[in-house]
Amino acid sequence: MSNLLNRLKADAEAVEKALTAYLSRENERYPVLFDAMRYGVLGGGKRVRPFLAIEVCRMLGGKTEDVMPYACALEHIHSYSLVHDDMPCMDNDVLRRGKPTMHVKYGEANALLCGDALLTKAFEIATENENADPKIQSRAVKSIADLSGAFGMIGGQMLDLASEGKNISPEDMRYLHSLKTGALIKCACRLGIIASGCTDEGITADIDEYARCIGITFQIIDDILDKTGDEATFGKSIGSDEKQNKTTYLSFMSVEEAYSEADKLTKKAVAAIEKYENSEVLTEFAAWLYARKK
Amino acid sequence: MSNLLNRLKADAEAVEKALTAYLSRENERYPVLFDAMRYGVLGGGKRVRPFLAIEVCRMLGGKTEDVMPYACALEHIHSYSLVHDDMPCMDNDVLRRGKPTMHVKYGEANALLCGDALLTKAFEIATENENADPKIQSRAVKSIADLSGAFGMIGGQMLDLASEGKNISPEDMRYLHSLKTGALIKCACRLGIIASGCTDEGITADIDEYARCIGITFQIIDDILDKTGDEATFGKSIGSDEKQNKTTYLSFMSVEEAYSEADKLTKKAVAAIEKYENSEVLTEFAAWLYARKK
Repeated sequence: MSNLLNRLKADAEAVEKALTAYLSRENERYPVLFDAMRYGVLGGGKRVRPFLAIEVCRMLGGKTEDVMPYACALEHIHSYSLVHDDMPCMDNDVLRRGKPTMHVKYGEANALLCGDALLTKAFEIATENENADPKIQSRAVKSIADLSGAFGMIGGQMLDLASEGKNISPEDMRYLHSLKTGALIKCACRLGIIASGCTDEGITADIDEYARCIGITFQIIDDILDKTGDEATFGKSIGSDEKQNKTTYLSFMSVEEAYSEADKLTKKAVAAIEKYENSEVLTEFAAWLYARKK
Repeated sequence: MSNLLNRLKADAEAVEKALTAYLSRENERYPVLFDAMRYGVLGGGKRVRPFLAIEVCRMLGGKTEDVMPYACALEHIHSYSLVHDDMPCMDNDVLRRGKPTMHVKYGEANALLCGDALLTKAFEIATENENADPKIQSRAVKSIADLSGAFGMIGGQMLDLASEGKNISPEDMRYLHSLKTGALIKCACRLGIIASGCTDEGITADIDEYARCIGITFQIIDDILDKTGDEATFGKSIGSDEKQNKTTYLSFMSVEEAYSEADKLTKKAVAAIEKYENSEVLTEFAAWLYARKK
């Protein structure tokens, strides 16, 4: 496992460096916007989505530098969604990763515009390199727009809003998660495929299945840690799902049953891709997601 | 002029039809998002930006069907910016074109997500056609992202927020407008160039100059009509700039001087492009913007 941990660390550092470079240019007439954008993107998170994009691309023989713009573009999408999600009219959260949320620090209007700017910048980053293959750029843009938009992540947020304070069925909860968190995980893996130049439908289907299984596992473990985790290790307050009356996996099953479902999904994820050469990083990552404590 | 009016009408109808088609697909589990998106885009406005994209493309020998996706993508950007601009934390407007604004009709959370969905959909539309030239798609995406993002329209909105209740210099006001309204007008014309396949720098510079001049004229006339217009014809309440203590062209000059500046700019706009064959629609449009009463 130490090999995987080193890889996670190295990839996260490379991503941080690239993100910092993308966010370095600014207009001196309104520096606050660029400060806010850096505040929303830099210095936080596990960079799970960029990691997946990079490692899928590598497994398929692509180069890190070819996938990096798309990995960073997707991280901008993820970041904007957190900024807008935290706003008073949405979740009204005041803390994220131990720091004040964007609207608390910069005010609501700036948070709204900063989110819009990050979302827009994702597409600038994806098309910035004039020497890249435009066919690949165009496919990457379409994939990001499809999976983060009204039929992807934003759809999941709509369902989440609509289900507030309601008991929803297991099937509806699974569908909600497949969009709200699953769509960007699928997108990360798709961007790795696209950047590698691969257009094989069989390979795409295998990696989609991998993404689907680890996406659900990620969510199940999140639900378990929210109930049973160690607050200091998890980095979030424990019991927030119950306080918010949220439907989670643990609304339908015991912790043991949830772990058992996550274990089955992890095995499925591994089975979907282990036939490929150089799949170890991704299969170990699936096991790491299952075993994580934070 | 009646030729121009017919063309404006025909283009607006073709754009409405294309927008309606783009917005017809929906997910039946959360129809409210798609209702809201249609509410934010369809049935309103002069469609100035799509008109410019289409007519610049035609002037350069391109086909309407080649530019239509980019024209519609840009109209999605324009529409999302109005939805977010009207929100309580921004301008807190309750009426737009005589109808309740998005957050009044659908609630704040839905308005936020609907704006995000429209912004994202712009890039989906721009890359949807798999038979289009990917080089052109990629250039169009980059142009939209650049000119509507942190260094374009959103930058203008930041400056607008920062100058609320302050007296700003004529130079700062002009700079603000060049981003807030000028950037999307420039983008519209650029999309026409890109869609036509033209990459000539001289032609691009001429059309940029045309866009710059009509963008300022558009703003000057808006300021004049806000002070002197007929409320029923203008379609907005008169005197709102003064009530909001906004710095406008009329903070520095008389109505006559403002008309004189707009007249000079209109002549410059015409001079920049009249050497091109088939430039009549665009030169007449510049004169129409100057003479408009609404």
